[in-house]
Amino acid sequence: MVTGMTEEVVEKARRARQAAGRLAVMSRAEKDRVLLAMAEALEERADVILEANASDVAVAREKGMSSAPIDRLVLDQRRIGEMAEGLRMVAGLTDPVGEVISGWRLPNGLEITKVRVPLGVVGIIYESRPNVTVDAAGLCIKSGNAVVLRGGSDAIRSNVALVGILNEAGRAHGLPEGAIEIIETTDRAAAAALMQLGEYIDVLIPRGGGALIRRVKQESTVPVIETGEGNCHVYVDASADLDAAEAIVVNAKCQRPGVCNAIETLLVHQSVAQQFLPRVGRRLAAAGVELRACERSLPYLEGAKPATEEDWGTEYLSLILAIKVVDDLDAAIRHVNTYGTRHSEAIITRDLAQARRFTREVDAAAVYVNASTRFTDGGQFGFGAEIGISTQKLHARGPMGLPELTSYKYVVVGEGQVRT
Amino acid sequence: MVTGMTEEVVEKARRARQAAGRLAVMSRAEKDRVLLAMAEALEERADVILEANASDVAVAREKGMSSAPIDRLVLDQRRIGEMAEGLRMVAGLTDPVGEVISGWRLPNGLEITKVRVPLGVVGIIYESRPNVTVDAAGLCIKSGNAVVLRGGSDAIRSNVALVGILNEAGRAHGLPEGAIEIIETTDRAAAAALMQLGEYIDVLIPRGGGALIRRVKQESTVPVIETGEGNCHVYVDASADLDAAEAIVVNAKCQRPGVCNAIETLLVHQSVAQQFLPRVGRRLAAAGVELRACERSLPYLEGAKPATEEDWGTEYLSLILAIKVVDDLDAAIRHVNTYGTRHSEAIITRDLAQARRFTREVDAAAVYVNASTRFTDGGQFGFGAEIGISTQKLHARGPMGLPELTSYKYVVVGEGQVRT
Repeated sequence: MVTGMTEEVVEKARRARQAAGRLAVMSRAEKDRVLLAMAEALEERADVILEANASDVAVAREKGMSSAPIDRLVLDQRRIGEMAEGLRMVAGLTDPVGEVISGWRLPNGLEITKVRVPLGVVGIIYESRPNVTVDAAGLCIKSGNAVVLRGGSDAIRSNVALVGILNEAGRAHGLPEGAIEIIETTDRAAAAALMQLGEYIDVLIPRGGGALIRRVKQESTVPVIETGEGNCHVYVDASADLDAAEAIVVNAKCQRPGVCNAIETLLVHQSVAQQFLPRVGRRLAAAGVELRACERSLPYLEGAKPATEEDWGTEYLSLILAIKVVDDLDAAIRHVNTYGTRHSEAIITRDLAQARRFTREVDAAAVYVNASTRFTDGGQFGFGAEIGISTQKLHARGPMGLPELTSYKYVVVGEGQVRT
Repeated sequence: MVTGMTEEVVEKARRARQAAGRLAVMSRAEKDRVLLAMAEALEERADVILEANASDVAVAREKGMSSAPIDRLVLDQRRIGEMAEGLRMVAGLTDPVGEVISGWRLPNGLEITKVRVPLGVVGIIYESRPNVTVDAAGLCIKSGNAVVLRGGSDAIRSNVALVGILNEAGRAHGLPEGAIEIIETTDRAAAAALMQLGEYIDVLIPRGGGALIRRVKQESTVPVIETGEGNCHVYVDASADLDAAEAIVVNAKCQRPGVCNAIETLLVHQSVAQQFLPRVGRRLAAAGVELRACERSLPYLEGAKPATEEDWGTEYLSLILAIKVVDDLDAAIRHVNTYGTRHSEAIITRDLAQARRFTREVDAAAVYVNASTRFTDGGQFGFGAEIGISTQKLHARGPMGLPELTSYKYVVVGEGQVRT
């Protein structure tokens, strides 16, 4: 099974597995002390982090990296402060471990409790955002999990510096060795090795673009939670309040176009197309959105380009919006369930029956009635923190907070019961 | 991705995916009518089933199949009656779909409900037990899922006859075409094809021996729920009630040795080894159990063979028991967490602190205090039915009933809210 993989990966995954046993039984007080110490250490040793980060940025610039990824890579005092604040906020959240989810007594007197426990070892495969290093480590520690981090090569110096500081601060407060491991080998073989280490790793969460996620899903024999791809839609129904519809479409497309819960296609009921499309088209154009329109919507949209079949399946993650007129709710649901990525979908309607059908029949993690898809987010949902947004149905769906980083066990207490 | 796979598998998986949309919105009344009609049809058309089964059995006998698997393969009026009863029992269970798991209102007025929904399409890869065909179909239909069945070649005629009858009876009561599909190609390529069809299949559940489960886990790019492998232990602590310990050890080993929740290794605290081992050894030997003992236990066990390292990691599934004396609770927990398959583990003790440590530190789906591991079972736990026992931590752990065949979606209702 495990052949030709780098020794570093195996050794670190093994250490994380050993740490997991100790982490699982740490009390909330112990874990919170570790998190607060980590936050303090990040701020105290900001100079070390900034120096490592400056090297990463210099190398990235030399390689000709463009400005958007450079921006995600760069750390400064403010960003380090935000990472520390994030850890303090996680310390303030309820510990999910130990929660009794349910419990009952069997006719034979056995008492069963279903108790929340950590997953064990969580592997995170991500690109070059150093803040993911600290966020993921904080959420995993709080939920009693060890974490093996495999970040992108462009941020490796920053990541190694961050993990070094986190571990040093944590260990002084009882964090076991191996609780936070960072893979320093950043070639593909190292990531591939991680994906075969089911013996040590309980779940892999890829965070990044669609290509990364698909690759992990395809190659990994360790269970994977798919996150983040979002080809989301707003459907404006015949009975929609068009003022609300316009505000929601503009918000869902423009407020932050590069994120997974932004919309990529607008669907409009044929009966309101003539009335709605010109006004929303003007608003979108004014906001700099490129419009790609189906044949029926094209006449109502000044400056729009014709959409192709490919547009319906594309997550632009930028100021582009595909627009399609549909005959009815059935056609809208069919379109969403065919092209959507099961992330976030919205209907704008005043009709209760249409709203009920849309919410029941659309297959997505979050289905909205008269609200922007941009609310699909652990923070917005009130979870306090988020490790990612799951687009699969197994284990967790939608925003994943601390409870989604746990499993459960059944504790069964008796007085000598045997099965007959 | 999908290359060289049999057309049959792709076509049937695609049909199941289409059926899933309709199944997800069927009411409990509709689904129960389907299940009851299926039960009746199985009994009415028993002759067709028995004829197909007789062919399977004849072929198996010709191939020289041994008596245990032949016994699992053979159907008779009584077994058909039991399958029908199973469907009627599932019809009597609460529908998990539509359950509001939780709900809350956000500060901005958005109302969120977390609602239980079907997984979609469930794939079952199993060996030659025709009862799995009916059980799995019934549980999947009740939980609103379409099911793609891939049973072993030895039962293929029986399975095709069963699925034909189930579908015909179901369709007369609104079951959509594609709801229950059986793959008739029983070569490895067909199973391999199924494991690559993430486009149509949401989860694969292998049911059978360890080799089958490991193969599916290794090869599948569709999410898998691992079931069934059980290397389970009873640990008899220093303070154990030795009468209870003896009864539990004998029950957990002998009541049904071929199942996953039977124990394979007995661990005994050194302080009670001399007192406990001779008596439990005699009882076990009298029940026909072969004993394989560590060096320290060997002197107390008449007729026992020396155990090797391999014994600690073996799921015998037969009347063999490995026995080991341990220094203390720590050693017992370490042994269980090293060699166990995270299925079912028991401590026999009168000491509360030891019980608490064992239940917290042992990593298993079900952890028992003073009771037999044989209770890990959906029926025993009160779930009414069981699709398998998960030994992984993601999605579901331990016995899986109807709720474990579901996911959830967030339904968010507003009045024009946008994100600022």
